[in-house]
Amino acid sequence: MSKIKYELIKNDNDNKNIRLGILHTNHGDFETPMFMPVGTIANVKTLMPEELKACGSAVVLSNTYHLWLRPGEDIVSKAGGLNKFMNYDGPTLTDSGGFQVFSLAKPKDITEDGVKFKSHIDGKELFLTPEKSIEIQNKLDSDIAMSFDECAPYPATRKYIENSMRRTLRWAKRGKDVFNNPNQSLFGIVQGGEFEDLRRESAIETVKMDFDGYSIGGTSVGEPKDIMYNMISYATKYLPYDKPRYLMGVGEPIDILECVERGIDMFDCVLPTRIARHGNCFTKHGRINIKNAKYKEDFTPIEEDCDCYTCKNFTKAYVRHLITAGEVNGGRLLSIHNIRFLIKETEEIREAIRNDNFKEYKENFINNYKSSD
Amino acid sequence: MSKIKYELIKNDNDNKNIRLGILHTNHGDFETPMFMPVGTIANVKTLMPEELKACGSAVVLSNTYHLWLRPGEDIVSKAGGLNKFMNYDGPTLTDSGGFQVFSLAKPKDITEDGVKFKSHIDGKELFLTPEKSIEIQNKLDSDIAMSFDECAPYPATRKYIENSMRRTLRWAKRGKDVFNNPNQSLFGIVQGGEFEDLRRESAIETVKMDFDGYSIGGTSVGEPKDIMYNMISYATKYLPYDKPRYLMGVGEPIDILECVERGIDMFDCVLPTRIARHGNCFTKHGRINIKNAKYKEDFTPIEEDCDCYTCKNFTKAYVRHLITAGEVNGGRLLSIHNIRFLIKETEEIREAIRNDNFKEYKENFINNYKSSD
Repeated sequence: MSKIKYELIKNDNDNKNIRLGILHTNHGDFETPMFMPVGTIANVKTLMPEELKACGSAVVLSNTYHLWLRPGEDIVSKAGGLNKFMNYDGPTLTDSGGFQVFSLAKPKDITEDGVKFKSHIDGKELFLTPEKSIEIQNKLDSDIAMSFDECAPYPATRKYIENSMRRTLRWAKRGKDVFNNPNQSLFGIVQGGEFEDLRRESAIETVKMDFDGYSIGGTSVGEPKDIMYNMISYATKYLPYDKPRYLMGVGEPIDILECVERGIDMFDCVLPTRIARHGNCFTKHGRINIKNAKYKEDFTPIEEDCDCYTCKNFTKAYVRHLITAGEVNGGRLLSIHNIRFLIKETEEIREAIRNDNFKEYKENFINNYKSSD
Repeated sequence: MSKIKYELIKNDNDNKNIRLGILHTNHGDFETPMFMPVGTIANVKTLMPEELKACGSAVVLSNTYHLWLRPGEDIVSKAGGLNKFMNYDGPTLTDSGGFQVFSLAKPKDITEDGVKFKSHIDGKELFLTPEKSIEIQNKLDSDIAMSFDECAPYPATRKYIENSMRRTLRWAKRGKDVFNNPNQSLFGIVQGGEFEDLRRESAIETVKMDFDGYSIGGTSVGEPKDIMYNMISYATKYLPYDKPRYLMGVGEPIDILECVERGIDMFDCVLPTRIARHGNCFTKHGRINIKNAKYKEDFTPIEEDCDCYTCKNFTKAYVRHLITAGEVNGGRLLSIHNIRFLIKETEEIREAIRNDNFKEYKENFINNYKSSD
């Protein structure tokens, strides 16, 4: 048992940002770029470990905030850690709880020490600090833990972002100092909002602390796409080449392509399961809603050439029937398709990098995707 | 493709009511006694066909009333029938819609012609007749269809039950006259409430019409257990030995034993999936609720020696965590366990009949089950 190790396989010939790699973990190796489904409370909604594997899923992310509240990190630890608790033998990643504290649990009171907030479950007052976040994650025993950061809002003043980013640096240091799990790896998080010099400062200072990998935080919080893409570019150019880079909370098919082009290796997002519950699914011609009346007597799969369980076994008419009747299995079948869609996209991206045709693949994908009705 | 055929393998030596048999269908054969899970709208809640098979499930029941309303029998028919629509290759059974009309869709207006009622979905006024029920089921193309009956309430006056039972006989005849699917079998339904002579009359008259099998209706509508058991005994003694007997809506573990003893071959019930969603599960020592705080740190399976997916892979603490957090997968894992529990019970019953020790098996099961805390 040891820390993760990133191994670079190949760059794109024309754009060295674009990386094909392997991440070695205590629970198996996987190639990057990779999309990771979210199992908030040690459970990817409606799916079982075997189904995730059938989707090609290599890593499952769980949320520290949620597991801290329910069932509590001590129960997960007594169960033998996150893997044993959820009966998943592949790599796992936990976030720091920061994003949830800032998005779910309002009102909040941020001090140098940490964040005081109310539980979204019972309103109970709680206090999360960088040390506490690390302590919880050490007990959860995920393969990869995240530093506790402030996920700053968009828009925010430069002054706010600057103060927040520097506090996040101090929090990263505090978390690293108490980190105490030799089998777990710890990522630092680059903040700095939309400001190039602040992203630069954050990246350089975070890298100085020598983490096992680096995340880009504070994206997907309402900023326009071009600003998000810039945030990535500003950060990745200061990140070391021998460590993985993880973009938190991004899972739109086109965003994945744009961000791989800007040097990202790992993605996670609740999007594929969340939109599924409302009848939405990805196709290579864009997103469709299966509730549309035109699918009522459509006895073909969502995508003819898709290799997912849903497309191999069920028709649009059947999935539509389940979704319109409010049956859980409707969302389950679309979750399988959507997760497979994003993972297959990263598989194709890796193949494209291997064959030095990422640029063509990206253009082709985007042209097809935008042809949606 | 042809009608079903019941083949008797063996009776209990001491009690000839107790039957081990095989039902031959167009979608495979299965041994009886058998418990059948309910897939109301062509979907067993939270489970996929492969999971049902892993539970040992041989037959899936769907509800004609629900499929008539959504997606409509013509869509199921265009999909190629119920099996193709839901991608299930095993035997299927549809009820007549009668039970739902009388339980879900109120107010109702019963005439000789049929039942006028309001849809439970949108309040639209609908009219279901014996002919319409059969026409819908012929299109659904299940292996076994049911005659349209009135599921009379309990308690009701003798006069009410008598009139209702005789109308059900006339409805059975009308349905049989329009029945038009050579690959489908049709069951008659014995009514007559708690009255021995009325059950007798209903059984004898229904059998005269020569159906492919017989159901006992009007049980599990609130009557005490001893009255329900009597209803079964009153009916089965007039049913032919070479046709299957199906008790509708019964799925309590002890009821299954009591009713096998009284000559029943087939059972269905929503109980295993319905109680699962509330955290309840069957064990050989009785029903438990997984939400109980004592399971919070219980890292053992629901039943140590259970061969279901849930018990082989997950602990009580994990299932409890999912259920208390409201996760669908909690109900899914308990549904798997509960369905497997009832099917395994029927497997054990068959083994006991084969070995001529049904009586011991039953006593032992009931003693264990009642030892629940």
